[in-house]
Amino acid sequence: MTLADQILEGDRLALSRLLTQIENETPEGRENLGKLFPHTGDSHLVGITGGTGTGKSTLVNHLARYFRHPDHGTPKKVAVVAIDPSSPFTGGAILGDRIRMRDLAGDKGVFIRSMATRGSLGGLAKSTAGVVQAMDAAGYEIIFIETVGAGQTEVDIARLAHTTIVVEAPGLGDDIQAIKAGILEIADILVINKADRPGVEATERALRSMLQMAQSSNRNLITNNNHHTEIGMAEANRSLDQINIEMWIPPIHRTIATEGTGISELSQIITDHYNHLRTSDELIKRERQRLRSELDTLLRESLLARWRNRVPEKEYLAALDKLLRREITPWMAVDQLIDGGFSA
Amino acid sequence: MTLADQILEGDRLALSRLLTQIENETPEGRENLGKLFPHTGDSHLVGITGGTGTGKSTLVNHLARYFRHPDHGTPKKVAVVAIDPSSPFTGGAILGDRIRMRDLAGDKGVFIRSMATRGSLGGLAKSTAGVVQAMDAAGYEIIFIETVGAGQTEVDIARLAHTTIVVEAPGLGDDIQAIKAGILEIADILVINKADRPGVEATERALRSMLQMAQSSNRNLITNNNHHTEIGMAEANRSLDQINIEMWIPPIHRTIATEGTGISELSQIITDHYNHLRTSDELIKRERQRLRSELDTLLRESLLARWRNRVPEKEYLAALDKLLRREITPWMAVDQLIDGGFSA
Repeated sequence: MTLADQILEGDRLALSRLLTQIENETPEGRENLGKLFPHTGDSHLVGITGGTGTGKSTLVNHLARYFRHPDHGTPKKVAVVAIDPSSPFTGGAILGDRIRMRDLAGDKGVFIRSMATRGSLGGLAKSTAGVVQAMDAAGYEIIFIETVGAGQTEVDIARLAHTTIVVEAPGLGDDIQAIKAGILEIADILVINKADRPGVEATERALRSMLQMAQSSNRNLITNNNHHTEIGMAEANRSLDQINIEMWIPPIHRTIATEGTGISELSQIITDHYNHLRTSDELIKRERQRLRSELDTLLRESLLARWRNRVPEKEYLAALDKLLRREITPWMAVDQLIDGGFSA
Repeated sequence: MTLADQILEGDRLALSRLLTQIENETPEGRENLGKLFPHTGDSHLVGITGGTGTGKSTLVNHLARYFRHPDHGTPKKVAVVAIDPSSPFTGGAILGDRIRMRDLAGDKGVFIRSMATRGSLGGLAKSTAGVVQAMDAAGYEIIFIETVGAGQTEVDIARLAHTTIVVEAPGLGDDIQAIKAGILEIADILVINKADRPGVEATERALRSMLQMAQSSNRNLITNNNHHTEIGMAEANRSLDQINIEMWIPPIHRTIATEGTGISELSQIITDHYNHLRTSDELIKRERQRLRSELDTLLRESLLARWRNRVPEKEYLAALDKLLRREITPWMAVDQLIDGGFSA
C-alpha cells in the first residue's frame, strides 16, 4: 500500500511522514501530494490570526474541543496547523497551556502540526498550502491555521483559509493600529478575547468604527455604480438591499477563552460563515483565489529552478562580483543572466 | 538636469519623487535607480526591529537626533525608512510621538520615508532595497530601517542592513519566545528599552542565556572542525582565540528612549560595529550577501514577467479551471504552463 493510500485510510503516522516530506520539499512529497490532490476540497479551512498575547492558541484549543464533543452534534475531525512561534502548539508555551492541551493530544480525531518559522521568503506559505491539502485529503473536516498576524507572510497564509478570524484583546496598545494596516480587510469574524479585561468597550468601539468605514465605502461604491448606469434611487436602494442579504457583515464576538466563555457561540458563527459561503457563490470564488495564489507560487519557484539548471553557477557568481564592484546594476545583471547578454 | 543628477546634488523633492517611482515599480524608477547604482555602497545601513510596544520608533528618533547634534562630532546625514505599521513615522502614532518627531522633520539633514505594508509577498522587501539604494546614492550616511520584526518578510528586510539591532522591553510576556524563533540569529546589538520597568533583570537574563547557547554551539563547531582536520588541542585553542578576537559578541544594552537615557552609548556601539565590519572582512561579506539576495528577488520577478509575456492569459485560466475541478494537480498545471504539455 502506498503512503497516499495509507493516508486516505486514516493512518496518522503516514500523514506525519508526508507532512515532513512536504516541509523538506522532497520529490516524494510532491508525488504523494499529487496523488492525494483529487481527494481535496472538502475541508473547512479556518485561519486564526492576531498579535502576541491575544490568546488565540487557547481559543483554537477550546474550539477544537468544542467541535470534538459528542454533545455538540456529530464530532468533526479537527486538524490544527500552528505557525505562530509563540503558540503552545509550536513549543513556546507556558506550563498551563501545555496541560490544557493534553486532552487534545490523546484524541485520535485531532491532528496537530506545528510549522517551523524559518526558511526562505514565501517558502512557509508554500509548504503550509501543501500541509493543509494533505490534511484535507486525510479527511479532517475543520482545519485551523494559526498565525501571528503581523507580517505579509502571515497575511498570505491567512489567505489560504475559507474563514478568517482576527483575534484582538483589550489593552494591548498599538495593536489595533497594526491590524488596521491590512489584516482587517480579510477578516470574516472578529473576536475580542480576554473580554473580562478593562478596556473591552474601547477595543470594540475601535474595531466597529474601522469596520463601518470599510462598509460605508462599499455602499458608496455600489450606489455610485448604480448612479452611473442610470438606475433611479429607489432601484439603487433595492439592489443595495439585495446585496446586503447576500453580504456577510463581519460580526464582533467577545470570548474569555481561558474559561470557555463564548466558545459555543463562536463555533456557531464559524459554521454559519461556512454555510454562507456554500449557499452564495463565495466558496467557489475563494477556492479559485486560493488555487490561483498557490499556482503562482509554484510557477515562480519552477521558473527559478529551471533557470538555475540552465545557467552555470560560475556565470551567476561572475555577475555578482561585477555587481559588488558597481560595474553593472542589478537589472543589468538580471538581463545578462536571463538573456545571456546586456540589454540595458 | 535628470532626476538622478538632481538627487546626487541633494535635491530632496527629486529623491521623494524617485522613491514613489520605486514603490510603484515604474520603468522610470528602475532606470533612475540604475543611474544611481554606481554611487551606492557608502552608507551605514542600520536595521532596527522588535515587537509592538518595545518603543523602537522613539529609539530611532533619539538616535537620529544624536547623530545630527553638532556636539557629537561632525553631524551625519540621516535617513529613516519605517515599515512598522504602528510606527509614528508611518502614521500610527500617539500625539506625544508626533510632537517629539517635529524637530526631526524641520532638519534638512534628515530624510524620513514610510513604506506601505500592503502589496504582494516579497514586493515590500524588493522596494525597500530600492529605497535604501536611492538614499545611499543621495548621500545619507546612516540609514535606519525600522521593521516590526515578527514575520519572515521583516527578517528579510532586516537582512538588508549592515548592523541589525533587536529591541526588547521588560514585561511583554511571550515576546522573547517569538524573538527566539529566528530574529535573534541575525542580531548584532540587543537593546532592552524601557529599562526602568520592572522585570528588566529577567529580560536580560533570558536574552543572555539565549545568546550564550548560540555562542557555545559556535565554539563546539570550531573545536570539532579543528579536531577533524587533525590539529592538536593547543592549536585548536589558539585558533579559537584568534577567532574570538575577530568575532563580534552581540552586546546587550539598556536604554530608556523616552528620557534619552543610554542613547549616547548606543550610538557609540553602532559606530563600533560598523568599524568592526570595515576592519574585518565582514563588510564585504555582508555586502555580497545583500546584493545576492536582491539579485535573486529580481531574477524571480523577471522570470515570471517574461513567462507571462510568452503564455496567453487564456491558457493560464484554462489550467486554473482544471485545477479547480481537481482534474490536474498544481504541479501538473505548472508543467503544462511552462513546457506547454503534461510531463507528469
